[in-house]
Amino acid sequence: MVLLLFASALLGLGIALIYYLKVSRIPLTQGIENTEEAEKLTKIHGAIARGAMAFLKAEYKYMVYFMAGFGILIALLIDDPHTPDVNEGLYTAISFLLGCVISILSGFIGMRIATIGNARTTTAAKNSIADAFYVALNSGAVMGFGLVGLAVLGLVGIYLVLEALLPGIEKHILMEVMAGFGLGGSSIALFARVSGGIFTKAADVGADLVGKVEQGIPEDDPRNPAVIADNVGDNVGDVAGMGADLFGSCAESTCAALVIGAVAFATNLEALLFPILISAVGIPISLATMFTARVKEEKDVAPALKRLLIIATALSAVVMYFVSMWALPESFEINGELYTNMDVFLSYLTGAVAGLLVGLLTEYYTSHDFKPVQEVAKASETGAATNIIFGLALGYQSAAGSILLLAASIFIPFTLAGMYGVAVAAIGMLSTLVVGLTIDAYGPVADNAGGIAEMTGMGESIRDRTDVLDSAGNTTAAIGKGFAIGSAILTSLALFSAFLTRADLLDPEANIMDSINLLDPLVLTGLFVGAMLPFLFSAMTMKSVGKAAFDMIEEVRRQFRTIPGIMEGTAEPDYEKCVGISTEAALREMIAPGILIMGTPLLVGFLFGVPAVAGILAGSLVSGGVLAIASANSGGAWDNAKKYIEKGNLGGKGTETHKAAVVGDTVGDPFKDTSGPSLNILVKLSAILSLVFVPFFIQYGGLLTGWFFFRRTCGSANPHCCLTLLLLFLKNFCVKFKDLFGS
Amino acid sequence: MVLLLFASALLGLGIALIYYLKVSRIPLTQGIENTEEAEKLTKIHGAIARGAMAFLKAEYKYMVYFMAGFGILIALLIDDPHTPDVNEGLYTAISFLLGCVISILSGFIGMRIATIGNARTTTAAKNSIADAFYVALNSGAVMGFGLVGLAVLGLVGIYLVLEALLPGIEKHILMEVMAGFGLGGSSIALFARVSGGIFTKAADVGADLVGKVEQGIPEDDPRNPAVIADNVGDNVGDVAGMGADLFGSCAESTCAALVIGAVAFATNLEALLFPILISAVGIPISLATMFTARVKEEKDVAPALKRLLIIATALSAVVMYFVSMWALPESFEINGELYTNMDVFLSYLTGAVAGLLVGLLTEYYTSHDFKPVQEVAKASETGAATNIIFGLALGYQSAAGSILLLAASIFIPFTLAGMYGVAVAAIGMLSTLVVGLTIDAYGPVADNAGGIAEMTGMGESIRDRTDVLDSAGNTTAAIGKGFAIGSAILTSLALFSAFLTRADLLDPEANIMDSINLLDPLVLTGLFVGAMLPFLFSAMTMKSVGKAAFDMIEEVRRQFRTIPGIMEGTAEPDYEKCVGISTEAALREMIAPGILIMGTPLLVGFLFGVPAVAGILAGSLVSGGVLAIASANSGGAWDNAKKYIEKGNLGGKGTETHKAAVVGDTVGDPFKDTSGPSLNILVKLSAILSLVFVPFFIQYGGLLTGWFFFRRTCGSANPHCCLTLLLLFLKNFCVKFKDLFGS
Repeated sequence: MVLLLFASALLGLGIALIYYLKVSRIPLTQGIENTEEAEKLTKIHGAIARGAMAFLKAEYKYMVYFMAGFGILIALLIDDPHTPDVNEGLYTAISFLLGCVISILSGFIGMRIATIGNARTTTAAKNSIADAFYVALNSGAVMGFGLVGLAVLGLVGIYLVLEALLPGIEKHILMEVMAGFGLGGSSIALFARVSGGIFTKAADVGADLVGKVEQGIPEDDPRNPAVIADNVGDNVGDVAGMGADLFGSCAESTCAALVIGAVAFATNLEALLFPILISAVGIPISLATMFTARVKEEKDVAPALKRLLIIATALSAVVMYFVSMWALPESFEINGELYTNMDVFLSYLTGAVAGLLVGLLTEYYTSHDFKPVQEVAKASETGAATNIIFGLALGYQSAAGSILLLAASIFIPFTLAGMYGVAVAAIGMLSTLVVGLTIDAYGPVADNAGGIAEMTGMGESIRDRTDVLDSAGNTTAAIGKGFAIGSAILTSLALFSAFLTRADLLDPEANIMDSINLLDPLVLTGLFVGAMLPFLFSAMTMKSVGKAAFDMIEEVRRQFRTIPGIMEGTAEPDYEKCVGISTEAALREMIAPGILIMGTPLLVGFLFGVPAVAGILAGSLVSGGVLAIASANSGGAWDNAKKYIEKGNLGGKGTETHKAAVVGDTVGDPFKDTSGPSLNILVKLSAILSLVFVPFFIQYGGLLTGWFFFRRTCGSANPHCCLTLLLLFLKNFCVKFKDLFGS
Repeated sequence: MVLLLFASALLGLGIALIYYLKVSRIPLTQGIENTEEAEKLTKIHGAIARGAMAFLKAEYKYMVYFMAGFGILIALLIDDPHTPDVNEGLYTAISFLLGCVISILSGFIGMRIATIGNARTTTAAKNSIADAFYVALNSGAVMGFGLVGLAVLGLVGIYLVLEALLPGIEKHILMEVMAGFGLGGSSIALFARVSGGIFTKAADVGADLVGKVEQGIPEDDPRNPAVIADNVGDNVGDVAGMGADLFGSCAESTCAALVIGAVAFATNLEALLFPILISAVGIPISLATMFTARVKEEKDVAPALKRLLIIATALSAVVMYFVSMWALPESFEINGELYTNMDVFLSYLTGAVAGLLVGLLTEYYTSHDFKPVQEVAKASETGAATNIIFGLALGYQSAAGSILLLAASIFIPFTLAGMYGVAVAAIGMLSTLVVGLTIDAYGPVADNAGGIAEMTGMGESIRDRTDVLDSAGNTTAAIGKGFAIGSAILTSLALFSAFLTRADLLDPEANIMDSINLLDPLVLTGLFVGAMLPFLFSAMTMKSVGKAAFDMIEEVRRQFRTIPGIMEGTAEPDYEKCVGISTEAALREMIAPGILIMGTPLLVGFLFGVPAVAGILAGSLVSGGVLAIASANSGGAWDNAKKYIEKGNLGGKGTETHKAAVVGDTVGDPFKDTSGPSLNILVKLSAILSLVFVPFFIQYGGLLTGWFFFRRTCGSANPHCCLTLLLLFLKNFCVKFKDLFGS
């Protein structure tokens, strides 16, 4: 079993390497005869690649501090009193660090290939649309296969490492320690998604507002100092951010299923590692799927991408039926309920199908081929205000269908196979992750290719071809966002269940499973506070974009003012300065929302205990899910309503209607690329954090409730009262600190 | 006790009558010597009053159909099998109808006095600001005292009627039947709030877009055909809508407390009716408070209004301490827990103080004296898009503080006195209802007075005075909105508890209190679907405003085009046509969101049973609460950011910054006056509906779950399966139908 997983992981990495070589071996300036053009291309391509790496380097510095600090915190705070011979905190910290490293590595590979593939897509477009399509798709495939291969490798690797370090340990403790891996992946996703989202939108807004509006130069004009930052941003936000987000979902949903299943499958390795197997099986299936991509002319592009997703889902469904029957016992027991392997397969299927449907529904609401976006475009005729109102209403409305689909993919698996079913459905929704990531990474490559074509002045026909690629990418990006949000919600729910399972195992007397009742004051209050968190978090990220964009605007204005010859194209703007400003602002503005996400569950758990954390998680999950879908779809719809008008509908470019639509598009930018996607991280990260920190909550949690209930009972779940609890915590903390660093 | 309540109710009605006479006895054209001006004033005043009454008349037609239809539905569907000798459905229908009638009566009185007081405030402003202030305040007081007097009268009245009709009935059944009164009040609030909200914004947007933007005439210009509709709208939305909303909150929170307390206080009339006593006590306290209002010059107005609220809260707190000690037993038991009268008083106090704080926090976020709104105004400098982003972020952020305050006012009472504590806290938040309503109704009267001054061309100095009154009204309106939302959330929560209490009493074997667990698939799925509902509902109401405004725009354009001499002021526009269009559109567009609110809990309960309804209620309550606060505050902030700029800041009127702020204001209109406040109704109405329909859910509910679980169990809470259940339902339905109409 373990060998099988390893083989599949290595297969994934091997395929990624092959695609990598395939793309990178294409000479950068292939087919370009004009030396000046070639020079320009090399220069711009280099600037984007350098900018992306500069951002990564700056980000890594923050990440290293964070990893070290948070790793130590994990090692110090987590300790299961029932297993005094195992230092759970230390091993969890190791899993955490490995998760971080693998997530960082995935992001690095993605950025690398994206900045290699972009210019090569441009030059391939000189030849034919099909050539360009394959270069962009192959670049994406490096990300898809590489990331999933790394995820499987990391999960199996940490399992083997922990088994070697802790021989004979109970499986459920092993799996709980492994959850640290998911936490690592998700923490890095916080950096990548939030700071990436701020970076890309600050650069975008800055470039547009000064360049297009104030100076009247077209988009992607090389005279604009922020233009390189804008192109870097596409890679930072859409490649690294989306990749880390989905890597996190994959690692976390797998960890959740592992924790929930550990008690049932302690002696059955196939069944125990079944959750990892689902991702592993996706690798060969995706390879087979990739061969079905056929593009000859322009109209083939969008259907080809969508077909890939549908084929991958269908193939997976068939293969997974046999895999489930093979790996899982015919019937098994979790928490006193009996389930069958057929139940698990059906849960998987529900997740996979619901994921696809959520994706297609997202497309319906954000593509200008359909009525909703056209309605928003039409509303622009009466001004920016009606455009905004209709766009917001569209987002709010679109959440209804997606949530109903997700509700079905919670209810059915839950009824079939309990919490384990929900966790498997979450992994099922990610069953097409390789293909999904391929398409997601394809998008920004095509987008960048268009930008490079414009900046090097390669002429209309090339730009038209890259535009076709780009627009197909936009459609599939919408589908990808649907997947990302849907899987984030299911994953969080699975983590939520795993959190309660672990708490129940650790403290059976508190009867936590029963106390998570809507009529418990702590749960209920937590629910309210939790429901508010996504809104507060969105407000913070939206304002962060505003502040970062303001820094950028100042700098671009300064450059236009102080660099002589910049508008004539004789002097070169200082691209790197703009990249630096976006980098710095993105990392600075990420700190406050980051603390909110990571601090809230820890603080609430410490002060109010497990039921309050459960309330917070459930509240933020339900309201965050809806808000994430609404934000992403509103943003997508505003973007495409503008594009619909630019295609010549309702008067076309330059009219008042178009101007109104541009306002909507600008409002939508932080919605769809920063605050919306960041909510995925909020719901997942707070859930996995709670799962990992369960022993901490059980041992020391409920400080304030102990005090508040003083009149009646003295700490309901805890045998200690406020002060004794605090003293105990401080004493144990000091002892562990000495253990770890003293000797 | 009953006599005391009656006396207090009559006192309230008497005071209302005195204020009514005080205002209406002022001759309409007092102090106006110019006959032309007097004529104009009479004409405009008459047109507004007629328009308001025309709207009410049209609305009543719909209401009568609805009341008849829904009353019959209640009579048919509700039946407690444990009490075969009592036709609960019929008596609940009677309570329902009484609740409807009293709510309608309150709205009528409010509209009547508002349309009488508006012109009289204008003429009083000729004399002095103090005179005008008192006329407007006294008009408001008619609404405040009248409405609370009617509420107390209605509650005591229905109690006595039911006791007479059902002698010797168990108190808790009596109280459950009385909940129909709350449902009636809340149903009428649905009409008043939602259709009122659509009316006022359709008229406002229509008048502004064609008049101000297209024709370039000032606001409130009599040449604008929609100007009367706009002024009517202020009364329809802010007087009748807000009044019905708060009347609903008052009736519902009282009913919730009555139902929860009924088991404990069956033999103790003082304690049993204590919830009604809280509102009754508010009447004399408010009368005392009203005498403290002192206004001499312009700067006194806003502080005077705010002081009224603070004094009322403080006075109530003191008086309520003694009332609680007198009316409640020193200790009593609910659901197996022991509570004291001190616990109840502290719960009351928590609610009252939290209400005031939420109100003041709302003011902080929506007044341009403070930083948040100034930030939004500043963001307008970079265009409409940044204005929108910062306004939305402000709303999202502002929810944090209010929700934390509300969380405290849930947690503390819940810990002190369980569900009864929460219900009392909800009533406590409304303890200053008389004063609150007075101030709320004062606002639109002052606003209308300004409009009338403008339309009759009374000159700058009068307009300046009414502007002062109006702007003070805006501030306190913001506070009032905070109260309305906060009390709606607490009320819904109290109703939610009452709903579960009743379900538990009806079906003790299902152990419903324990099954409302976050790990129950139905509860969890319900939570998700519930969290989505407020978004869907907001989308519907926002689009409704859009459609209604579009009808209005067409009509105003048509009149400007076809009526010769309209722009020169020689021909009169057809005001009534515009009022008619707004009326028709408002009532038409209300139907779909209304069905969503009322249909969802009924359908979910029928198909999935009580736990699913509990999930839906909790989900929609938490996400709806946050969304309501965010929408109202964003809207208020945009409005005041525009006003801040119009005062000459950041360049003042006519600049690009101002134009950007106008876009925000237009977006904010449906936010703050339609979709936001309508969410209050959503959360309350679905909760009281569920409470009233508990017997229906218990007897026939869970149709689909029975079927879905078929594989494992055959209807978990029900002894019947899908088909037998359906047949039983149909049979019983026919029998009851025959009973009711056959003989």
